[in-house]
Amino acid sequence: MQGLTVYAPFLGILSLIIAFLIYNYVKKQPNGTPLMQELEDAIHKGAMAFLKREYSVLIIFIAIVFVLLGWGIAWKTAIAFVTGALLSMVAGFSGMTAATRGNSRTAEAANKSGQAKALNVSYFSGSVMGLAVAGLGLIGLGFWFWVYGGNPDTAQYINGFAMGASSIALFARVGGGIFTKAADVGADLVGKVEAGIPEDDPRNPGVIADNVGDNVGDIAGMGADIFESFVGSVIATIAIAATLTINTPETLAAFVKEFPVLEGLSVTAIKLKYMAMPILVIMVGLLSSFVGVFSIKIFQKGSPAGALRYTTFVAAIIFVGLTVLITKTLGMPMGAFWAVFSGLLCGIAIGLLAEYYTSGPPVKRIAEQTKTGAATVIIAGLAVGMQSTWLPILGICVATFVGYTTAGIYGIGLSAVGMLATVGATMTVDAYGPIADNAGGISEMAGLGSETRKITDSLDALGNTTAAIGKGFAIGSAALTALALFVAYTQAANLGQVLIDNPMVVIGMFIGGMVPMTCAALTMTSVGKAAFAIVEEIRRQFREIPGLLEGKEGVKPDSTTCVAIATNSALKEMVAPALVAVLTPVAVGFLLGKETLGGMLLGSVIMGAFLALFMANGGGAWDNAKKWIEEGNLGGKGSDNHKAAVVGDTVGDPFKDTSGPAMNILIKLMAVVSLVIAPILPAVGLFLR
Amino acid sequence: MQGLTVYAPFLGILSLIIAFLIYNYVKKQPNGTPLMQELEDAIHKGAMAFLKREYSVLIIFIAIVFVLLGWGIAWKTAIAFVTGALLSMVAGFSGMTAATRGNSRTAEAANKSGQAKALNVSYFSGSVMGLAVAGLGLIGLGFWFWVYGGNPDTAQYINGFAMGASSIALFARVGGGIFTKAADVGADLVGKVEAGIPEDDPRNPGVIADNVGDNVGDIAGMGADIFESFVGSVIATIAIAATLTINTPETLAAFVKEFPVLEGLSVTAIKLKYMAMPILVIMVGLLSSFVGVFSIKIFQKGSPAGALRYTTFVAAIIFVGLTVLITKTLGMPMGAFWAVFSGLLCGIAIGLLAEYYTSGPPVKRIAEQTKTGAATVIIAGLAVGMQSTWLPILGICVATFVGYTTAGIYGIGLSAVGMLATVGATMTVDAYGPIADNAGGISEMAGLGSETRKITDSLDALGNTTAAIGKGFAIGSAALTALALFVAYTQAANLGQVLIDNPMVVIGMFIGGMVPMTCAALTMTSVGKAAFAIVEEIRRQFREIPGLLEGKEGVKPDSTTCVAIATNSALKEMVAPALVAVLTPVAVGFLLGKETLGGMLLGSVIMGAFLALFMANGGGAWDNAKKWIEEGNLGGKGSDNHKAAVVGDTVGDPFKDTSGPAMNILIKLMAVVSLVIAPILPAVGLFLR
Repeated sequence: MQGLTVYAPFLGILSLIIAFLIYNYVKKQPNGTPLMQELEDAIHKGAMAFLKREYSVLIIFIAIVFVLLGWGIAWKTAIAFVTGALLSMVAGFSGMTAATRGNSRTAEAANKSGQAKALNVSYFSGSVMGLAVAGLGLIGLGFWFWVYGGNPDTAQYINGFAMGASSIALFARVGGGIFTKAADVGADLVGKVEAGIPEDDPRNPGVIADNVGDNVGDIAGMGADIFESFVGSVIATIAIAATLTINTPETLAAFVKEFPVLEGLSVTAIKLKYMAMPILVIMVGLLSSFVGVFSIKIFQKGSPAGALRYTTFVAAIIFVGLTVLITKTLGMPMGAFWAVFSGLLCGIAIGLLAEYYTSGPPVKRIAEQTKTGAATVIIAGLAVGMQSTWLPILGICVATFVGYTTAGIYGIGLSAVGMLATVGATMTVDAYGPIADNAGGISEMAGLGSETRKITDSLDALGNTTAAIGKGFAIGSAALTALALFVAYTQAANLGQVLIDNPMVVIGMFIGGMVPMTCAALTMTSVGKAAFAIVEEIRRQFREIPGLLEGKEGVKPDSTTCVAIATNSALKEMVAPALVAVLTPVAVGFLLGKETLGGMLLGSVIMGAFLALFMANGGGAWDNAKKWIEEGNLGGKGSDNHKAAVVGDTVGDPFKDTSGPAMNILIKLMAVVSLVIAPILPAVGLFLR
Repeated sequence: MQGLTVYAPFLGILSLIIAFLIYNYVKKQPNGTPLMQELEDAIHKGAMAFLKREYSVLIIFIAIVFVLLGWGIAWKTAIAFVTGALLSMVAGFSGMTAATRGNSRTAEAANKSGQAKALNVSYFSGSVMGLAVAGLGLIGLGFWFWVYGGNPDTAQYINGFAMGASSIALFARVGGGIFTKAADVGADLVGKVEAGIPEDDPRNPGVIADNVGDNVGDIAGMGADIFESFVGSVIATIAIAATLTINTPETLAAFVKEFPVLEGLSVTAIKLKYMAMPILVIMVGLLSSFVGVFSIKIFQKGSPAGALRYTTFVAAIIFVGLTVLITKTLGMPMGAFWAVFSGLLCGIAIGLLAEYYTSGPPVKRIAEQTKTGAATVIIAGLAVGMQSTWLPILGICVATFVGYTTAGIYGIGLSAVGMLATVGATMTVDAYGPIADNAGGISEMAGLGSETRKITDSLDALGNTTAAIGKGFAIGSAALTALALFVAYTQAANLGQVLIDNPMVVIGMFIGGMVPMTCAALTMTSVGKAAFAIVEEIRRQFREIPGLLEGKEGVKPDSTTCVAIATNSALKEMVAPALVAVLTPVAVGFLLGKETLGGMLLGSVIMGAFLALFMANGGGAWDNAKKWIEEGNLGGKGSDNHKAAVVGDTVGDPFKDTSGPAMNILIKLMAVVSLVIAPILPAVGLFLR
């Protein structure tokens, strides 16, 4: 059974082949009028221009870290790092390519063939990202597991792969997040507020940048985030398994007594079994995802919301069955299954909680506050965001608890793997959202009929819900993955004796809390700065291009410059938070020692998880409060209530799409950097000698 | 030398006598025109009515907890609890009485005798609170130390005193915080925004409630907060000293080797010395405060800002000298002095950082954002608040580090004591702020001349700065005290072997993070609800009382009803967060065990300290950005920029004066409750059996 892990890369390749075939199917769909094709082309080119610029910056970063890792840790780790980074980039590129091709085709499907076909096209466009993330993950993990996973002592080199994925994710999330919100806020401020033209109006030079932003932020950024969690959770679990402290006869006897199914096995045999388990879990997770993705063909005729939900349920149910099967066949304790199962349930629960807070009663509570003005809207949204943190965190606690009690600290890792194993299906739904959003934008810009708009609007609204669920899921999986990586770090660094009342650990926790706070502040400020640059450019174009604002025939805005400005700002602004995230664990580890670093990781996970939920849910709730008013409630569009709600929405934009998501990466990246440098950390920090 | 601790209660009584004499001096000052006397009376009566109602609720709470503690822990602890609660209430009452008498007298002094006299009157009015807090603290701590401090085994009963102080502080801070901001926001919303009448206009029925709020929130609430920190830090240090693990010959030998000055002493002798040190430190701290307070007579002729600063410097310098003296005379290791000194410096540094973030360049950055509207003002303020957290937290880390390296975990407690020892002088400056603020309000309502307004305005502006410094100091001291209490808890609960990678500890930390987040959300929502009730009442009066809004001669608003509504709302709304704070540690301790509780405390301290700084500094910065615009910058009052700044200010009100300060109490109260219940906690939580 363990031997099946060698097929992981092949299963990954199969996933990529399916993704490619789906991509061809999507590309074959009609993409509408010449104007729509032109818009699609502009968005596609803008997105690719951003990726190209971003990746050319990242290549330098990868090269520097490659040398540092090879020279400081091990060249094997360094090579794994490069592959993790490259595969993450490929995943981002594939997903974006399909997504930008899917936008106009979804709009055209809505125009010509109705809702079912439009849902089909947008869903399958998104599935390219889902299958690419899962497939590339399996290729990389499976390959490195095949190379280094046969021996507990060499397993540590695989950590580099997770670090590669993490590094790219940080840049993709932060850079993409700044880009998308700067373009969104900038285009809205000048277009809607100053010039008084509708959202997505083709006269607005910032609209293409806004649409590009949806792709680079919500598709490429989200994909890199989930790819990182996927890879990180598996690698953390492997690392925990490889360093299980059952090397003495006593600990081994106690271990076998707890899990009698392991009776008679050698230490190495147990470890290898434990190391193989997460690989097998994601393999059956991918198989289940295949079925889940194609089940859309059965469900697409019903309600779109139900259809999306059922595809993930199908994947989840098959996954549960197959996991029971592999747990038994592999001869693992059944606790391993329960750990996986708890993670799966926790992921679903956190997603549903996010949906409740961002579209349930709290949204109406915020909307009601518009009656007393913008200030009370802000207060209510902040309160909703804060209030929304405890239940999801409780979910993470329960998953941790169940994982731990059923399978020891190893169970914490497995729980994270269980949450992420069906990523092929869940990520597809995540990627669907921005595609539907952009399809709406294109049908607005192309002036398609009101029937078409109605379809794209309803798909777009559903996309907002799936986006909220996806964000909750991303945070939950990030927190659980970061915890698993933390546990792996404590094992790798041999932190057997670190007590919580050790003041250096407490200091570490405080330092850990600083990083998310500081990065949240930095990224929020960055969005403001970048948005301002775009505002200036749009104002300039309205002023200097004759006939543009009046909508004169044949006069077109210079969208490319707006995209370029957003790209430059995003790339410039992503450097500071990235450096803070990468350098803090290194500095703390070497200067204050590995115990303080352990405390720092915990502090960062706690602060990061709470801030991420606070910002994502608060931002989502403001957004939907505004939308609810726009549907005609409390005075509707243009009323004073609406204006107050817009203030909340604008504050929520960087909250939910830039700073909040950045937290996910931050906590994982810091943990994985710590895990990688664990073997070379000094016992006593240099500052304390 | 140790024997001097018996004089602590007498020194406390001396402090009360001085405070009483100062109160008589203040009361003898002329209190202006009949209208001013009437206003003073209304504010005084409103404040006392609130206190009376609040205390009558608290008596029930105290009775219940008394029985539970006596029955569950020890009657000795229960009695100490009651005294702690009662002394905290006396402190609040004394400070408020003096403050409400000082308001009109400060205004009259500004009117008749100029700035120096006005500063003198407001400062001395505030000193009643400062000396009462320090004096009552010394009386209680000194008395219980005399009863139980002669034996390390009975020292734990003193913990009840801290719990009493903490419980009252929570209600005072949360109830007072909700009252003050509900009244402030409510009065402003109807008065300034709807009716278009100036702030502090006597026609507004909410103005008296607003002024009462400044007293119950910023004087009584702040006083209870600082009283709690003062008492908590000393008791934590005594508890750490009493439970020092030097009970085996080996540990004792190692200890004496590290601190040779203790050579030849028995274990008990060392513990008694260590236990006496914090009492002696606060005794010399009070003596230094006497000098500091009266040094205002020398400095009051110069710049008011300098005068206030110099009084605290005088106290600090004398305190440092005397602490060296007692460290040497008592035969303590000099590390003890350095621990005290680090705390003192940390307190000053955190105060100055708070001043920087709430009146330095960040304020102008926020003000600049008014050009693009309210949303960007909010984003900028949130970013400033987040950015303002890391340096003060670093200060706490440094104080912890220095305390720990110079005097072990005991040093962490001493560091907190050092920060708070000169509370007589620092709390005086804190209490000065709201008195000067109210003096300004009274001179506005009484229509005093522009010369007088100029003086009271400048004293008021200075009061805002001291308030920001005071808030930073309160947070820093709360965090350090909570840490010391946490250390005392780990000792008392005998948590020798709790590892940070124990998942139950990690779960505890997550739960610990939930409490501040939830309470912040609850209190912010409460302010909104309470403010809305006041808004309705003011609107009703404007509608139903003929001639009120027009300012017809002899027509007066019904201020009493507004005060009563604010009181009722505040008392009702304070219950939920208080229960969360008290019950969470009990539930976690009994259900999940004392190790999880240890993790919970750490999680709460980290989350609470960051949130407190974020909210206090963000709120202060918004407030001052608005004031800066009101000074005539960027268009001045009434401009669109001003309107955007007002939104920030309104959001900042509950941030800085309700939810932020509530965090201070929360983290201390949870730690002290844990410390008190530590002896009866089960080794394994009931849920885990």
